[in-house]
Amino acid sequence: MNNISGIAAAAGIAIAKAFVIKELELTVELRAVPDPEAEVARFHQALAVSRDELNVLKERTLQELGEEKAKIFEAHLHIMNDPELIGPIEAQIRSGHCNAEFAMQETSNMFIKMFEDMKSTYLQERAADMRDVTKRVLNHLLYAKSTDLSSIHKDVILVAEDLTPSDTAQLNKDYVKGFTTNIGGRTSHSAIMARSMEIPAVVGTKHIVDQVQDGDLLILDGLTGSVYVNPDQETVALYRDKQAAYEAQKLEWQRLLHEPSVTADGHVVELAANIGSLSDVEAVLSNGGEAVGLFRTEFLYMGRDNMPSENEQYHVYKTILEKMEEKPVVVRTLDIGGDKELPYLQLPKEMNPFLGLRAIRLCLDRQDIFRTQLRALLRASVSGKLRIMFPMIATLDEFRQAKDILLEEKDALVREGIPVAEDIELGIMVEIPSTAVLANLFAKEVDFFSIGTNDLIQYTLAVDRMNEGVSYLYQPYNPSILRLIKMVIDAAHAEGKWVGMCGEMAGDAIAIPLLLGLGLNEFSMSASSILPAKSQLTKLSFQSAQQLAEEALNCATAQEVAALVQANNEKLTVS
Amino acid sequence: MNNISGIAAAAGIAIAKAFVIKELELTVELRAVPDPEAEVARFHQALAVSRDELNVLKERTLQELGEEKAKIFEAHLHIMNDPELIGPIEAQIRSGHCNAEFAMQETSNMFIKMFEDMKSTYLQERAADMRDVTKRVLNHLLYAKSTDLSSIHKDVILVAEDLTPSDTAQLNKDYVKGFTTNIGGRTSHSAIMARSMEIPAVVGTKHIVDQVQDGDLLILDGLTGSVYVNPDQETVALYRDKQAAYEAQKLEWQRLLHEPSVTADGHVVELAANIGSLSDVEAVLSNGGEAVGLFRTEFLYMGRDNMPSENEQYHVYKTILEKMEEKPVVVRTLDIGGDKELPYLQLPKEMNPFLGLRAIRLCLDRQDIFRTQLRALLRASVSGKLRIMFPMIATLDEFRQAKDILLEEKDALVREGIPVAEDIELGIMVEIPSTAVLANLFAKEVDFFSIGTNDLIQYTLAVDRMNEGVSYLYQPYNPSILRLIKMVIDAAHAEGKWVGMCGEMAGDAIAIPLLLGLGLNEFSMSASSILPAKSQLTKLSFQSAQQLAEEALNCATAQEVAALVQANNEKLTVS
Repeated sequence: MNNISGIAAAAGIAIAKAFVIKELELTVELRAVPDPEAEVARFHQALAVSRDELNVLKERTLQELGEEKAKIFEAHLHIMNDPELIGPIEAQIRSGHCNAEFAMQETSNMFIKMFEDMKSTYLQERAADMRDVTKRVLNHLLYAKSTDLSSIHKDVILVAEDLTPSDTAQLNKDYVKGFTTNIGGRTSHSAIMARSMEIPAVVGTKHIVDQVQDGDLLILDGLTGSVYVNPDQETVALYRDKQAAYEAQKLEWQRLLHEPSVTADGHVVELAANIGSLSDVEAVLSNGGEAVGLFRTEFLYMGRDNMPSENEQYHVYKTILEKMEEKPVVVRTLDIGGDKELPYLQLPKEMNPFLGLRAIRLCLDRQDIFRTQLRALLRASVSGKLRIMFPMIATLDEFRQAKDILLEEKDALVREGIPVAEDIELGIMVEIPSTAVLANLFAKEVDFFSIGTNDLIQYTLAVDRMNEGVSYLYQPYNPSILRLIKMVIDAAHAEGKWVGMCGEMAGDAIAIPLLLGLGLNEFSMSASSILPAKSQLTKLSFQSAQQLAEEALNCATAQEVAALVQANNEKLTVS
Repeated sequence: MNNISGIAAAAGIAIAKAFVIKELELTVELRAVPDPEAEVARFHQALAVSRDELNVLKERTLQELGEEKAKIFEAHLHIMNDPELIGPIEAQIRSGHCNAEFAMQETSNMFIKMFEDMKSTYLQERAADMRDVTKRVLNHLLYAKSTDLSSIHKDVILVAEDLTPSDTAQLNKDYVKGFTTNIGGRTSHSAIMARSMEIPAVVGTKHIVDQVQDGDLLILDGLTGSVYVNPDQETVALYRDKQAAYEAQKLEWQRLLHEPSVTADGHVVELAANIGSLSDVEAVLSNGGEAVGLFRTEFLYMGRDNMPSENEQYHVYKTILEKMEEKPVVVRTLDIGGDKELPYLQLPKEMNPFLGLRAIRLCLDRQDIFRTQLRALLRASVSGKLRIMFPMIATLDEFRQAKDILLEEKDALVREGIPVAEDIELGIMVEIPSTAVLANLFAKEVDFFSIGTNDLIQYTLAVDRMNEGVSYLYQPYNPSILRLIKMVIDAAHAEGKWVGMCGEMAGDAIAIPLLLGLGLNEFSMSASSILPAKSQLTKLSFQSAQQLAEEALNCATAQEVAALVQANNEKLTVS
């Protein structure tokens, strides 16, 4: 039995035989062709077949996974119709009397290299798209048969170098029980798809393709990131039990779907979801989300060459509000800068981007961008229950200035005769220490707070969470963080305002009893964490959680806090 | 009358005729020489004359300004004796039969370019040194006469592109009443020299050399950074009054030299100085500093190619403690990283260096460096009143770990029979929000706190103070900063510990009444700010300052705080 570790990319346990996808070596050789026109025709035929395939994949993805996920095949079709790619290939065939596959590979590689050199995430993704498209067309030109994943008709766990979007779109969940790949991380395309499709997955194993044979029995643990190759009977039995327990757990979560979010002793909170796009809304509803606690609008601005127009944004906001019916949707205005770049904004390089011109600072500086977004939001506000939230507010001046701009745009719309909701709540992210420390003053002027723990921890402990050299200082349970959270909640409640949290901490099993005890009103997390959180909450005693939080505030270190929660696990739970 | 603005580099007001130093154009042409050996001899003669000049300058600087300031001429002499420079020049004269000035310029320019390309501040300073040396030798080779500044025998204000170290060493304070330059900033060489020599100076005016004629009457205001060219009678009269007032003020400060630092109603504080090297100690004593509140030891490590040894450090610490007699000296352990690089450490590039591996984080990671410094400090501790302070402490774990290492080294020394003082106070910088928030826990374990406002403001408001795009957020008077300071002071006093401050805020006239009112015990600032601060303090009422601070804590913005202090200026002062 061999145990291989990787990155847990999608939860669940799978036990099945391995199906190893070996990368087809596509060997392209230069060949002189007697009749270039016939070769151009052969090239176009390969394009046509590839287009048909892509249209099928697009249609299937659209129906099974929604518009957003189908977009990638739109992009592939777009590349395949691009005269800037096709033109040079035809020209090379004609002038060089060379074979189509050679001309295609030469030309594509040039573009791929150019995109990759650009150091823009957007263009690097375009390079990956072009590689996928090129492989598809070359397959046809070389009459190579790539593995047809849709033809799998027995239970398997796929083992591959990586799965391309074209691959994942062909997966049949009834037979593909899980997959594991050499490359990738939690946010790579295949990992995101695995979570969407609820197929257990372990990615980033580095060498699994070389360590597994077709037909080997595998146990894939998508909860811990382990893969066992040809496990013994005992291990199989153990994992069958774990699998059953996980399935039972999922069933319990499913039963909670329409239950209220209330502790065992009757304290009600709101469980909300963080989303990044329209296509995430379905998962919010199917996981029992009572609200959208954070819509990260920057994804509307990323992965493109220009600013989204007011109308384009309006339609997205409107559709999300409609889909959520009368459930609240907290929309965070543009939080760009820091580690999130927009190449088309051409912002100057900064020495410490996390302490630089980002989020509301950028929006107050570039009011054209800000006003366009606010107008789109205000116009959409009549389609549901909108809450607007400003990110990275550090001073009252900034909040007042941003609010004034919002009111100006509202007045302008009203003068134009465009309807705007009257009950839009206006809040801020609390993610900068100064704002937590002055929460009692902010609480008089905002409708709500949402604590952004990812950044709050970063600034409070002066630690870049991306920097591995100091990652030991990124401590969600540090008592200083708990004290700042308490300051914010107490200040808000004194003014009759509510407090949410939309950092990763809100969905963390150790943090939940503490946050509950501190009085947090709304917990916003990834949709897939909502039901596990509800399961935990419904068993907790609010009163015990309050005592626990009080104790935790006087702990000296993060380790002491975590140990305290763990030691009190039983006392906290009402059985 | 023309008003030119620049950067106020050294305080004081000067009124005198302009003496404009035009840069001599040194035109070097390639010329064939019939006898290369004679040319080599001519080159060596120019070197010898230059060396004599430098020895005179060095000697004079040593006597007038001390060892540290004379070091630069050591460096110049070193370059002039360097076979790596001299060798190639001789070789070029011999092999190319070319003139010495051409060979010298070619070779020097190559080195200068190489140093400048290195992006290391240290090497860029070496490039400036080499430029200064080259100019000196070329002057002799070309028989050019550069302006002899030591020959000035009437009152003047110098106007120049820039003043090199060689220039400033020749200034005669009796006649040079002030100077102003096109380039430079508050920390450039000429600005530092101006403050040392107490000559009023305005630097960084950009174009003043082109705007002023020899003999023009100038008023130079080193307090505000203004220069008036050919002012009218009225302005001259006004500035004669200002000059007299400033001189009277200086006299008043001088009278305070041996007075205690006590408010008008009898509350005693400590006024201390921040220093960066041994040579700064004299200014501390001559300005009435009661302690060194911050010795920034990183300057021992910078501007060199290797780590300073334990013995080298020991001698510096010992000498400082001895010079300060029994006055306390707070030594901050190495605070490197962030914007302060040590090329020979070869640290990895970080995306956000201010949130990265710096100061105590680096020392706990590279314990060899840390232990060497601690041993040097412990050995020196018997020579005076040593206080050791750790920078950038974010968690109690870090403090405990650093303290354990200190105790280990102390035990080791004691075992070796080396005497170590028993009364060394051990404190931390409070410059990270988490530490301010948990001050009540830290206060139980440290002997003192020193609040580092430069970084505390930076992290609390999430603003890189070097980034001009967000500099409006670098707000010392933000009420959140005052609240954190209060938290720290109250926590320390509850445990009977004292609190100092060593950020720029401690010497700021608006901040001083607030900090006094919040209960700060020790104010540490640049030596030249001590007497002005003492003058302000002795007129203040502690009781009124306490009321003021209480009000300021409830202000909403930094502007409100500043306005509050200004509005209460009279009430605060006991006349």
